Amino acid sequence: MRILGIDPGIAIVGWGVVDFQNGKFRPVAYGAIRTEANTPTENRLLEVYEQLDTIIEKYKPDSFALEELFWNTNQKTGIIVAEARGVIILCAKRHGLEINEYTPLQIKQAVVGYGRAEKNQVISMVTMMLGLPKPPSPDDTADAIAVAICHAHSGSSRLREFYNKPTTMKGKIN
Amino acid sequence: MRILGIDPGIAIVGWGVVDFQNGKFRPVAYGAIRTEANTPTENRLLEVYEQLDTIIEKYKPDSFALEELFWNTNQKTGIIVAEARGVIILCAKRHGLEINEYTPLQIKQAVVGYGRAEKNQVISMVTMMLGLPKPPSPDDTADAIAVAICHAHSGSSRLREFYNKPTTMKGKIN
Repeated sequence: MRILGIDPGIAIVGWGVVDFQNGKFRPVAYGAIRTEANTPTENRLLEVYEQLDTIIEKYKPDSFALEELFWNTNQKTGIIVAEARGVIILCAKRHGLEINEYTPLQIKQAVVGYGRAEKNQVISMVTMMLGLPKPPSPDDTADAIAVAICHAHSGSSRLREFYNKPTTMKGKIN
Repeated sequence: MRILGIDPGIAIVGWGVVDFQNGKFRPVAYGAIRTEANTPTENRLLEVYEQLDTIIEKYKPDSFALEELFWNTNQKTGIIVAEARGVIILCAKRHGLEINEYTPLQIKQAVVGYGRAEKNQVISMVTMMLGLPKPPSPDDTADAIAVAICHAHSGSSRLREFYNKPTTMKGKIN
């Protein structure tokens, strides 16, 4: 199963595509969508949509997962990030993908083993689990891969079901 | 000039298309996009996108304006509304429309004449200015028409420029 994990944002949207089979991960591609700070919000939202659209077209993931958004203390930033998140969800949905959301706690729990793990522990585990030559950069990319790993783990029973009967996989995995 | 005004939301998205020429308004079409509360957010976002897409395709506005979003006290609602707003802006932008944003204060100022006007005063003025047989319902639709009126007024100098040289209209009108 091929999973696309996303760490939503507006300046940087981390993304990672991983294959998960027989309990093992294989990195397919990963990176970050970047938008310029001093450009109109609508241009940045369009940029996020179009780049994500290209990524989904190119790597054709079976599953899609992203980090849940929490209220930001910076109101202006919080609104723009939520707008970008709406655009990201729309793009995945228009490609017929299921939307799976995980909290930072669930992601850390799945990747490191406990929910209060530090960021560098997450990055180290992601690097190790995928056998990467060096830690993914920026951190947003590592976070996106972590979301994909979390989705693979959280949905393990459903994934087994998926391997047995590819056409019966329905409903949300979380 | 044909203006599409939007009152963003997730359960109800008010919309109104008005023609503005020689200082007069003519109602073209107005209504509300509604999404069901107990359905996944991604389905609701897709619904908003697709319905707005149809409205823009059908009425082909020259201009697009929407109400600026402020931080909501209800965090969960605030995030979903911002996500819907991102989808609305994306849809307009993909149709090549400029995005114009106005605060509730600017809208009330433009429609009623002062920024602290009550909601029913806005609805009455919208009904009168467009010569409607009865007040638009729901209120979100009246608010959307108010945004369109606000855009016509705020951008009056630019609109004059538009009528003279249709191809030179660039930049944000606000």
